[in-house]
Amino acid sequence: MIIALDAMGGDLAPAETVAGALLAKREFDIDVALVGAAASLRQELAKHGGTPAGIEIVEATEVVEMDEPPAQAVRQKKQASINVAMSLIKAGDADALLSAGNTGAVMASALLKLGRVRGVERPAIGAMAPFTEKGILILDIGANVDCKPSWLVQFGQMGSVYMEKVFGIDQPRVGLLNIGEEDSKGNELAQEVYSRLQETSLRFVGNVEPDRVPLGVADVLVTDGFTGNVAVKVTEGVADFIFSQLREVLSSRLHYKLAAAVLKPALMEMRSKMDYGEYGGAPLLGVNGAVIVAHGRADAQAIMSGLRRASEVAGSGMLDALRGALQPAARDGAIDAAAATRSRDETRA
Amino acid sequence: MIIALDAMGGDLAPAETVAGALLAKREFDIDVALVGAAASLRQELAKHGGTPAGIEIVEATEVVEMDEPPAQAVRQKKQASINVAMSLIKAGDADALLSAGNTGAVMASALLKLGRVRGVERPAIGAMAPFTEKGILILDIGANVDCKPSWLVQFGQMGSVYMEKVFGIDQPRVGLLNIGEEDSKGNELAQEVYSRLQETSLRFVGNVEPDRVPLGVADVLVTDGFTGNVAVKVTEGVADFIFSQLREVLSSRLHYKLAAAVLKPALMEMRSKMDYGEYGGAPLLGVNGAVIVAHGRADAQAIMSGLRRASEVAGSGMLDALRGALQPAARDGAIDAAAATRSRDETRA
Repeated sequence: MIIALDAMGGDLAPAETVAGALLAKREFDIDVALVGAAASLRQELAKHGGTPAGIEIVEATEVVEMDEPPAQAVRQKKQASINVAMSLIKAGDADALLSAGNTGAVMASALLKLGRVRGVERPAIGAMAPFTEKGILILDIGANVDCKPSWLVQFGQMGSVYMEKVFGIDQPRVGLLNIGEEDSKGNELAQEVYSRLQETSLRFVGNVEPDRVPLGVADVLVTDGFTGNVAVKVTEGVADFIFSQLREVLSSRLHYKLAAAVLKPALMEMRSKMDYGEYGGAPLLGVNGAVIVAHGRADAQAIMSGLRRASEVAGSGMLDALRGALQPAARDGAIDAAAATRSRDETRA
Repeated sequence: MIIALDAMGGDLAPAETVAGALLAKREFDIDVALVGAAASLRQELAKHGGTPAGIEIVEATEVVEMDEPPAQAVRQKKQASINVAMSLIKAGDADALLSAGNTGAVMASALLKLGRVRGVERPAIGAMAPFTEKGILILDIGANVDCKPSWLVQFGQMGSVYMEKVFGIDQPRVGLLNIGEEDSKGNELAQEVYSRLQETSLRFVGNVEPDRVPLGVADVLVTDGFTGNVAVKVTEGVADFIFSQLREVLSSRLHYKLAAAVLKPALMEMRSKMDYGEYGGAPLLGVNGAVIVAHGRADAQAIMSGLRRASEVAGSGMLDALRGALQPAARDGAIDAAAATRSRDETRA
């Protein structure tokens, strides 16, 4: 098993990507192909005492920057690290891919190099919400901002397969993120998706209100990419806000400071648990390969978690199961060809 | 100045509504008309030593329950406390209204009894997000789950007037809740609203990503009612989750318990600050009256805050300013009459 790592992707690349690869090798014996500017990567490796067995460098001479229009950049920069890494999977020279780069670029590159799993109308980006021990998969979180009902039904199917295969959950509970419990609640999209999910063989647990997500009432939460992205970012923003308030309060008085010193390790652990990044990254679901996206600010620890997740996904049989699950389930006889080929939204996140 | 209080509305009514009214009278000298079952209300008042001057009872023999279809219940139960309270405003016998009842029912009753401000396509429900000292008004949070661009532009105009008049903010900063900073980001609705907001005379500060909301980069955040409802409920769920985790951690070891005892007052203050309910309730904007909705779980303290907010709104000139602001601003020459009269979505929250 070898994981292709987009070593140039992310705010802290290549220092933290290289350090993360070394950690993954040491802690979990994961072989990693570092894809990027060979000279820089060798320099980073040298800081850690050289290149151990199981770590190799694959040269890529270009990089997709965070602020570039992703679809365009991926097409123009054929030697971009994300494209070269994706080609390794395509050729069977790597089993999975991890990138902390621009999510839109990763999706665009995956569609360009790997394509969609047969039957998938739109691939989705999932995120593991950090509220339960195993995590809750929420998808889509930004690949498709204007969705058709049939896409969300497939998100449910893909999410169910992912949680079953990668996390070993038998018949994962699939919920629809919605603004009320009753089946009549929600916007037009949510109402239509509710009735369609009821007709599938999924273990559909109905609507889940956003304030009940942390209670772990579902293993998979289906939503459109706009709402999903808002939900994930509100979670991050509120957690940041509360912990910064906490820091302020704890340093406001001397006796608070003393008490805070006692609590510091527990509070730090709590904070890190609330971090989406700690959960090993977000899978792209519906593309023809095991592709995981790490947070743009991923440090070595997060890269290590992501590499571990990528190797779990690659070894889980998730892709084969996905291929089987989606063939018979497509409900709309004729997929809207225009929508399926229109790639604008797929490249946003 | 007298505020009509739907004394039967909310999970803790009438005990907490009556207690809240008494607090508001004592602390802020606010006169309150308690609308509801006179016998029950007298009983509650007796527990506090009787009915002080400035508190009066207005009989209403029916109640809209939390689980009733709101629009229907409001039409059928003509003597429902929310309808009787609304009639007090209509008749000029009260200056503002507060209810902790079903938000959909409050909106339906307001539309039925008061109607819309001339020029308003769709009234909205606003919530004060508890991240800054003055709070951030986010709207719509659930009255309109499928929105047209022109409605969101009006939400921005109404929100701007509200924050200027009620909170004294000169030229409030209006932002669009969106999943990216760049003007090309978002779903079709957000993209269209972005370009239309640029054409208004509002102080439009552009897109605000959900994780940046707590930083206070805008005074008013515009969004559709589905997304807004999700954002508010995610905030509540995440805050609940973090504080329950915190409680668990703090009681997990003896030395943590001792430290926690020192910190308890500070933590409790922090928790209550994070509570949407502490911010005095959510205004209905665009209806012909000053109407504030308190949280369904509002206790006496929250009712008191809500009554205070209601009296501030009534005394602020907000409604007159709204009437002036919306006339010239309507961009769509012909308002979609079908949409304007279709009341289905208006009664959800």
